[in-house]
Amino acid sequence: MIETDALIVGAGPVGLFQVFELGLLEIGAHVVDSLPQPGGQCIELYPDKPIYDIPGLLATSGRELVARLLQQIAPFKAPLHLDQEVSLVQRQPDGRFRVETRRGLQFMAKTVFIAGGVGAFQPKPLRVDGLAAFEGSQLHYRVQDPARFAGRHIVVVGGGDSALDWANHLADPASPHRAASVTLLHRRDAFQALPAGVARMRALCEAGQMQFATGQVAGIEVQQGRLVAAKVLGGDGVTRVVPLDDLLVFFGLSPRLGPIADWGLAIERKQLVVDTEKFETSEPGIFAVGDINTYPGKKKLILCGFHEATLAAFGALRHVHPDKPGHLQYTTTSPRLHELLGVETPLHDDGGT
Amino acid sequence: MIETDALIVGAGPVGLFQVFELGLLEIGAHVVDSLPQPGGQCIELYPDKPIYDIPGLLATSGRELVARLLQQIAPFKAPLHLDQEVSLVQRQPDGRFRVETRRGLQFMAKTVFIAGGVGAFQPKPLRVDGLAAFEGSQLHYRVQDPARFAGRHIVVVGGGDSALDWANHLADPASPHRAASVTLLHRRDAFQALPAGVARMRALCEAGQMQFATGQVAGIEVQQGRLVAAKVLGGDGVTRVVPLDDLLVFFGLSPRLGPIADWGLAIERKQLVVDTEKFETSEPGIFAVGDINTYPGKKKLILCGFHEATLAAFGALRHVHPDKPGHLQYTTTSPRLHELLGVETPLHDDGGT
Repeated sequence: MIETDALIVGAGPVGLFQVFELGLLEIGAHVVDSLPQPGGQCIELYPDKPIYDIPGLLATSGRELVARLLQQIAPFKAPLHLDQEVSLVQRQPDGRFRVETRRGLQFMAKTVFIAGGVGAFQPKPLRVDGLAAFEGSQLHYRVQDPARFAGRHIVVVGGGDSALDWANHLADPASPHRAASVTLLHRRDAFQALPAGVARMRALCEAGQMQFATGQVAGIEVQQGRLVAAKVLGGDGVTRVVPLDDLLVFFGLSPRLGPIADWGLAIERKQLVVDTEKFETSEPGIFAVGDINTYPGKKKLILCGFHEATLAAFGALRHVHPDKPGHLQYTTTSPRLHELLGVETPLHDDGGT
Repeated sequence: MIETDALIVGAGPVGLFQVFELGLLEIGAHVVDSLPQPGGQCIELYPDKPIYDIPGLLATSGRELVARLLQQIAPFKAPLHLDQEVSLVQRQPDGRFRVETRRGLQFMAKTVFIAGGVGAFQPKPLRVDGLAAFEGSQLHYRVQDPARFAGRHIVVVGGGDSALDWANHLADPASPHRAASVTLLHRRDAFQALPAGVARMRALCEAGQMQFATGQVAGIEVQQGRLVAAKVLGGDGVTRVVPLDDLLVFFGLSPRLGPIADWGLAIERKQLVVDTEKFETSEPGIFAVGDINTYPGKKKLILCGFHEATLAAFGALRHVHPDKPGHLQYTTTSPRLHELLGVETPLHDDGGT
């Protein structure tokens, strides 16, 4: 059980900056995120597209902005718990919140900051009648243990890096996890993937180590409760049956509000309703900042989230340090803030008179 | 008479970023500021002190931040009218605002954005009974025409760069504006000024071209309506009479809310009251952003001003483009915003499937 002043759910730019503003107020924080790396949407959806509207940064990118923020919050040493989706938030008799993740982390937090952006990123599903029942047994949206696919007949669906990388890996004669057969299926003969991965796939197909087909899964065949084949509608309009032991689907990730919707907070059009003084939700001690919140005038912009995180940090003071006055100190002048940031205080300069 | 969609009063970081957010919404802006350079407090009060809490900038300075913002708003080509203090804001029958500056600029604006920070910067006055009556004739807080001091007896008061530079200039035997005599008066024999200026002053004193005295002006002598001498209370406790033709005072600048206080807007503790949806004052069409406004939770931070300027820009849409829907577009993806920013739209990237 990890005890903390503040638990931040979401490691996108606003969640990261939340660490900074809490840190200036001497409120310690842990961060959890469902993705395996920090950055949220910025990294998942548009890592390299230029962003022009961060004040003071003429042009940046999601990747650069996140790197800059990680550097900026480094003095506060807030642990980042990645690849962890929150599954439970529960108010305790002492007013604190018990928070659990699906993979078993447990926190006891005085305050919770939901910086969940557009929600937790989830694999986009392949929607075919009857298929969902096989998720985790024969249907896989991510690979945790590639050894389980060794010696089996595999169909990989998708045209991005994940699809090609796993198809190549399982089809490779030198792979420790080499499958009995690999069929790669994509809706067209063009890929959104690194050229090297595409070239490797073509070479494996040439060498007879992999099959590639254009088309999409239109149905499945099940025998005695086991998935035995996919019905593939080809680009030529013909449906073919492809036998398989495992179906690996890589359609990318899309965000879902997910369990946050079930925490009992006031919600309006899938957004958490907050005030504009402290950006607190309907549950005292739970704050919501960034794209996941709503209030009159709300614009889903990163720079607005920075403001929200700032006022939310001050809002948290009364829960964490109820006896502290919470006067605003400036990073230009406060020796205490300089100490927290690990920088030197410049010599006093009393102006021109 | 300059016609404009928006007139921004104040060229500090928030006023400058206001240009950017208005520009993205295709609202044209002019900017006026009472200081001779853009940057407001950032430049006037702490140009070179590190600032640590601008999100994404590990450490910056007022000077650097302002330079970055000027570069960021450059695509919108908003004219900056510097050294111009607003003296009048008046609603016209057609709903627009007539704005005038002390030095005679006239604007007709659909909206006004007050980004006045802590107010217009004014020279700090020398408070001595009867002295104020001579401001502009024999008492000067700034030098507009140094020729007027040639051949006259001058007392310069202050210990900063402005005081030393003007004392040195008027005492210099090679100066075209050489005074008949120059006395420099400062409360102590130590200066908040560049070492070169101090060394030059010492050299001129050594050479008998300038007098330096520690002390302060405790009173004045007036004969036939003319200021003829200052009574100087010396560091030794003795009061001496120093004859003079002109008194130049350089005590630095300090901010004053100034005429904004008289515009009839709702004010609370010298701050303009705004809503948190559009950051509009009690007068529809007049917005207030940055340190000059107040609302529940307000923190006087630059990053909060950036948020306020953003929502205020959207708030102005109904006054400037009432038929435009005002949907939020993103600088990462909108070809129209790329056109306004003068950047290229990247090729479409439809993700990983």
